[in-house]
Amino acid sequence: MTSYIQPFTNMVRPDGVIENAQTVQQRRLSDMRGFYADAVAEEAAAASDPMIYEVYYAYVPEAVPGELGICTTTIYPGKIGAEYYMTKGHFHGKIDRAELYFGLSGSGMLVMETPDGQTNAQPMGKGTSAYVPPYWAHRTVNVGSEPFVFLACFPADAGYDYGTIAERGFGILVVERDGGPQVIANPRR
Amino acid sequence: MTSYIQPFTNMVRPDGVIENAQTVQQRRLSDMRGFYADAVAEEAAAASDPMIYEVYYAYVPEAVPGELGICTTTIYPGKIGAEYYMTKGHFHGKIDRAELYFGLSGSGMLVMETPDGQTNAQPMGKGTSAYVPPYWAHRTVNVGSEPFVFLACFPADAGYDYGTIAERGFGILVVERDGGPQVIANPRR
Repeated sequence: MTSYIQPFTNMVRPDGVIENAQTVQQRRLSDMRGFYADAVAEEAAAASDPMIYEVYYAYVPEAVPGELGICTTTIYPGKIGAEYYMTKGHFHGKIDRAELYFGLSGSGMLVMETPDGQTNAQPMGKGTSAYVPPYWAHRTVNVGSEPFVFLACFPADAGYDYGTIAERGFGILVVERDGGPQVIANPRR
Repeated sequence: MTSYIQPFTNMVRPDGVIENAQTVQQRRLSDMRGFYADAVAEEAAAASDPMIYEVYYAYVPEAVPGELGICTTTIYPGKIGAEYYMTKGHFHGKIDRAELYFGLSGSGMLVMETPDGQTNAQPMGKGTSAYVPPYWAHRTVNVGSEPFVFLACFPADAGYDYGTIAERGFGILVVERDGGPQVIANPRR
């Protein structure tokens, strides 16, 4: 008989843990130095090197058309200066690959930008389905006091371009103002 | 500026309703005559033409590589004879396209089959991530007493082949035996 990939399931917990995950990534502040606008606050926080976010992969498929990657991201609550904890953010290596996010718990903001600098920010919470269309770089931000957790599904051949965002950042930041989240222009752009 | 597809979000309720859905499909028994093994029970149920399942599409993208379709499916509780309410089931038109299911509420079974007749059944509930790999036809079944609801994400160019399953069915059925679900060989194959 032909050899097919066998179906499988995973339990996804509201805290983002995927049981029997294929792999887990952890991102501490030391893994993303220079990403926050307030360099003094970032330097001060570096001593304790806080966990910023974790990614559980239910499935890391071969990078072929037709397969799908599945993961959760848990962004912990916290700020570096006024800027909320966030993911690094990236374009897809194949830049026309889309992505689906589905909110599982907590509250966040999905920040996006096109190659020519159009920006967009969408609030997300439990039950929010958010579509990252082709060509939009994407970053998620925890704007609440609990972990912000979401499920993601992406084309297996999407790939990653982290360099562009690492170098220039996003055109907008999400910061705390008057006790709540506010989207502001990135002062470093 | 270049014209990009704009990002968007939808609220997905635990009952499967997607707010501001792009389109909704309803499948009554009259839309799937001949799918159930017990023809006498199907004929008896036809008079009231029950709603079997509904599909809310958050997004029906153009059928191009890189985009993703997003929908929920709500299968109502019930049986035709001993066989639980279920979806029609299909192969993808591009048969090597995968699909992700994510359980939102209720309890179900994901039934799958390859073109050469290998079968597989996976239980699903709230929080279950289920991967339908390339080449597997897929059908979902409500084995509980509440609506069974799940989110689905699939490559936009997957397409549908309903004809193969409509003609030959799946190699396995999910029926109630001794008060619970049991997977049996399809007596019509």
